[in-house]
Amino acid sequence: MTELATQVREIAQAARTASAELALKTADERNRALRAMAAALRENTPQIIQANQQDMEAARAKGTKESLLDRLMLDEGRIESMASALEELCDLPDPLGQVQEERTLYNGMELKRVSVPLGVVAVVYEARPNVTADAAGICLKSGNAAVLRGGSLAAHSNQAVASVLARAAEGAGMPANSICAITSTDRAATDELMQLHGVVDVLIPRGGAGLIRHCVEHSKVPVIETGTGNCHVYVHADADLDMARGIIMNAKCRRYGVCNAAETLLVDAAVAAEFLPPTFAELRQKGVLLHLDQAAAQVALGAGLKQGEDFVPATEEDWANEYLAPELAVRTVEGVGQAIEHVNAYGTMHSEAIVTADPQVAEEFLNRVDAAAVYWNASTAFTDGGQFGLGAEIGISTQKLHARGPFALEGLTSHKYQLRGTGQVRS
Amino acid sequence: MTELATQVREIAQAARTASAELALKTADERNRALRAMAAALRENTPQIIQANQQDMEAARAKGTKESLLDRLMLDEGRIESMASALEELCDLPDPLGQVQEERTLYNGMELKRVSVPLGVVAVVYEARPNVTADAAGICLKSGNAAVLRGGSLAAHSNQAVASVLARAAEGAGMPANSICAITSTDRAATDELMQLHGVVDVLIPRGGAGLIRHCVEHSKVPVIETGTGNCHVYVHADADLDMARGIIMNAKCRRYGVCNAAETLLVDAAVAAEFLPPTFAELRQKGVLLHLDQAAAQVALGAGLKQGEDFVPATEEDWANEYLAPELAVRTVEGVGQAIEHVNAYGTMHSEAIVTADPQVAEEFLNRVDAAAVYWNASTAFTDGGQFGLGAEIGISTQKLHARGPFALEGLTSHKYQLRGTGQVRS
Repeated sequence: MTELATQVREIAQAARTASAELALKTADERNRALRAMAAALRENTPQIIQANQQDMEAARAKGTKESLLDRLMLDEGRIESMASALEELCDLPDPLGQVQEERTLYNGMELKRVSVPLGVVAVVYEARPNVTADAAGICLKSGNAAVLRGGSLAAHSNQAVASVLARAAEGAGMPANSICAITSTDRAATDELMQLHGVVDVLIPRGGAGLIRHCVEHSKVPVIETGTGNCHVYVHADADLDMARGIIMNAKCRRYGVCNAAETLLVDAAVAAEFLPPTFAELRQKGVLLHLDQAAAQVALGAGLKQGEDFVPATEEDWANEYLAPELAVRTVEGVGQAIEHVNAYGTMHSEAIVTADPQVAEEFLNRVDAAAVYWNASTAFTDGGQFGLGAEIGISTQKLHARGPFALEGLTSHKYQLRGTGQVRS
Repeated sequence: MTELATQVREIAQAARTASAELALKTADERNRALRAMAAALRENTPQIIQANQQDMEAARAKGTKESLLDRLMLDEGRIESMASALEELCDLPDPLGQVQEERTLYNGMELKRVSVPLGVVAVVYEARPNVTADAAGICLKSGNAAVLRGGSLAAHSNQAVASVLARAAEGAGMPANSICAITSTDRAATDELMQLHGVVDVLIPRGGAGLIRHCVEHSKVPVIETGTGNCHVYVHADADLDMARGIIMNAKCRRYGVCNAAETLLVDAAVAAEFLPPTFAELRQKGVLLHLDQAAAQVALGAGLKQGEDFVPATEEDWANEYLAPELAVRTVEGVGQAIEHVNAYGTMHSEAIVTADPQVAEEFLNRVDAAAVYWNASTAFTDGGQFGLGAEIGISTQKLHARGPFALEGLTSHKYQLRGTGQVRS
């Protein structure tokens, strides 16, 4: 085994040892630790900013683009946000020890199904260093030991944040190694983590489609897939077209780089000529490049848009593309059936919206579209733990097993059956 | 791609197509299909028995051992049991369309979290052909299309049962290919199934530890691990020793080949001299070979047992061994702490029992042992969907993600968020 592999294994094993004790801490004890972690972030703000500056300088020297530099940067305000997010976790209900079922069996045995932590949760993420604090907090609140593996660009920042949090948690009575960071920037560290079936209970990759596919294909540890969002807005013939325009503008342009952004607009052929020209005008004003099917391209040309400048012809690849950029694919369809077919064929089961005034058509879409979140007359941008009222979010799951959609504390628990008898044996 | 790979892919894809329609069937429609399936099994009993006889003859010719032949054999009684199990599913509550959460968000949007099927469930299993009917029924009741891959020993039986069920389901209004069997006996078919991420939603291996490990290590489709059970009975110093003897005898000897059977007996050193001799006598009467640690071996020798005949020295491997046979490892420990440590180190998180009259010690065991089912003063043999009151069982999960312990209908569902708005966009 390489030195790195040994190191990753030892870290995960230490987290496993911690998890057994951590699972037994009361909600009050865990909340006290969260408050201590928040205080420690505030106290150590200068050191964290200093570490962050090392990352920023290295990133700038590499020619990293502005948008990434902005995600990487930590200042007092952002550290304060990380601290208050930890404190907000204290107000959420305890996900542990919930009695989900309780009954006396035919033979007098008492059965209880009780929520318990998963154990060791590994989170692999890319540039943003605030994830270090968010993930550590959500894991601790749910009684799980965390193994955190941040991106190399934020290595110093992540290490500074993680070590401040780990010290504070331990100081507040949590077992040592409840919060562990893997500081090696070698990608092989993630590969080693994925081998640790039986040590790590779940692996949550947060990042680009490439990272997630890599984990799904190679991990022996169970994975919760997150975040790839090829989301659609479908404008039905009976839609309020102003509402529809507001929704697609919000779903596409609110933020380009997020997983709940719309990537394809589907529009009923019956309203394409009326709906598309003013919508294209607004999208072009925002600088959105359009990828148009033939019918939409005809409408665009009629409205004076220029091929090659305002729009390009859509290809089969466009339907599956998560641009995460000011680009939008547009396809005309013949009614809700074809729209549903398109969404189920090309979507990533993340967030899908229909705009229509017809409740029956809406229900058909809500029921037949296979996605974590389906919207009627609202923007896909709402798919988010905070917006859904979960109070936190460790990711947005696009798989169906265990957790689906935005998930946080409940998604990091399992259950255990406890059976209390008086000597019962089975005949 | 090989011909087999293409064939498996086509079958799974057909099941995926079916799953979209199946998910929309009402509980009444699904129950009607289950009744039709039960009736069809009864009607086609002679043909099924005929197919089974082909398997039995081939198995006998291969020199298959009696216990396996017994698992393989189908007669009228067993087919009737399969049929009535399908009918019993009709009486269980519908797992679909359950509103798990419902609230109005701050912006007036209505959020609902509703249970939905997983989609396509693949079950890979070994000899017993009744699993074909059980799995098909549980999948259909929960609105999932089933891809069934039975063991080669039961190939004709499985094919006969599956095709009777598939025809009956389709005749009763379910979409074609709601129940699919992979009939190739080539092991590569399972390997191909494991590649179908995005087509198959979950893979449930039911069988030996080798099959399960193979799936966990190589599947790109999410897996629910089932069934390996290295279970323990721990006899605490304050136990009622007669009760303890009854429990270990039941947990070990009720059936040797099942996953909830005890494989190791832990006993407090303080009561070893009193508890072990009469317990060893009973176990030896049943023909159970003992694997003893040094202290237990001393007691055995003192009680007149012979090394090499009645017992052998336990090795490190014995602690991790799931015998599934009339063999039992025995270790003396110094109290509940050491017992918990042993169980958490060597157990497979299946079923674990403590026998004690001390409620505090019992609670410590129930809370600190990390297993799907933990028992106080009762036999591990109760870990079973029927015994737990689930009404059915597709497997016993030994993982923490998604399903844990015996699981059935609820374990084959996911959820979907439906959001109904009036034009809301996110600021």
